[in-house]
Amino acid sequence: MTEVVIIGAGNVASHLFRAFRQSGEVQIVQVYNHRSEKLADFAEISTTTSLSEITQADLYIFALKDDAIAKTAAQLKDTGGLFVHTSGGVAMESLSKFKNFGVFYPLQTFSRNREISFKNIPLCLEASSEENLHKLKELGAAISENLYEINSEQRRALHVSAVFVNNFSNHLYQIGADICKKHEVPFEILRPLIAETAAKIEELSPAEAQTGPALRNDEKTINAHLELLNAQESKIYKLLTSSIQELHGKEL
Amino acid sequence: MTEVVIIGAGNVASHLFRAFRQSGEVQIVQVYNHRSEKLADFAEISTTTSLSEITQADLYIFALKDDAIAKTAAQLKDTGGLFVHTSGGVAMESLSKFKNFGVFYPLQTFSRNREISFKNIPLCLEASSEENLHKLKELGAAISENLYEINSEQRRALHVSAVFVNNFSNHLYQIGADICKKHEVPFEILRPLIAETAAKIEELSPAEAQTGPALRNDEKTINAHLELLNAQESKIYKLLTSSIQELHGKEL
Repeated sequence: MTEVVIIGAGNVASHLFRAFRQSGEVQIVQVYNHRSEKLADFAEISTTTSLSEITQADLYIFALKDDAIAKTAAQLKDTGGLFVHTSGGVAMESLSKFKNFGVFYPLQTFSRNREISFKNIPLCLEASSEENLHKLKELGAAISENLYEINSEQRRALHVSAVFVNNFSNHLYQIGADICKKHEVPFEILRPLIAETAAKIEELSPAEAQTGPALRNDEKTINAHLELLNAQESKIYKLLTSSIQELHGKEL
Repeated sequence: MTEVVIIGAGNVASHLFRAFRQSGEVQIVQVYNHRSEKLADFAEISTTTSLSEITQADLYIFALKDDAIAKTAAQLKDTGGLFVHTSGGVAMESLSKFKNFGVFYPLQTFSRNREISFKNIPLCLEASSEENLHKLKELGAAISENLYEINSEQRRALHVSAVFVNNFSNHLYQIGADICKKHEVPFEILRPLIAETAAKIEELSPAEAQTGPALRNDEKTINAHLELLNAQESKIYKLLTSSIQELHGKEL
């Protein structure tokens, strides 16, 4: 059974830990974090707060903040195992001090208290050799049905796309919630719309799914909307409206 | 059984038609549209392309484009029935030439070829009298479990919020898809992330669900992302990043 050390104890680390344990195909032999209180969730297995105590294993997964990956790697000895990180924004080469290295990037948003099935999460894999890639595919297949070979440049593009579809969409939900609050309307009224907006994308391309006053060039509605918005909201409304019109003007 | 005439034959009209038929509690007695080819979907029942042929009924639903509502109403005689429209952006008073009038606004995005269960769609109701409101509630309860009393000003706020969470989010999906295409990455990799971003909002407020480089003030990642974007995408990225930081800087 593949023996794995997880370096880090944040959301990605916890979710990977749980998924590997449930798979029954991977043995987590140790979890590292520099703060012991973060290791409470992993009490059933061996944990350490010292990089010098990290044990021998087949695979080391750096599930750390982007900035911490190279710094932590610099303090680790090369055991000959395969060293990978889980970041969308960091090049594979940040781990090139090791003989065997790669990337094991689960493209999903993780929250501490929200269960999520790993089965559907796309795993973006990259490795320093064919043999290492093969190992990552085996490991990935234990927890997910969606494996992709993605190089560092493609991963960077995916990461910025993820910011648009995830972080920025969520911010638009927040603006929607703020407008509702200001006008004493319960935000819950918008929840089925949010769900359907995302669900449509399972079947349609975003270009096909686009609707609304911007697409229709419905100036009367656009102006009525702008009257309700504060300065910042107006700026966003205008920019996204013109962006929709530019994109669809070109395409249609 | 309540007898209903539907004026209009677009997406909202078709979805309402199907939902009322399935409920078994409402009888659609006629569907009007000025173009006969649009009426093909409603062949089982009486249809007309002439406003002067519109029949006697308890309720008349204007499921029309915003601009067409007042124009069409101007050409209709008051039969004494209850006249309502389904628009988020039009004031109830646009139908005040009738003795009994109101609004029956389903807050959802409708696509012609996508089935949708009406049960969870919020219906925003407004009426010219308590008695008329009561009638709309009875009618609404036949197809949906989510009824809300919403006045015209609140409805306008909901409508603009809906543009943010639906039209604009979808546009961000499109930008994500464009970036993927440019870097030869399949867009399908982002689909589970889009689904989870929306699903999180069932449990968390958007403020709680916010993550990403903008929130963390992670300038290194933000700058790396901006390098990948074209001028328009950069503008949107910068504006939404600063908006997230402004909102959360204020709150935290």
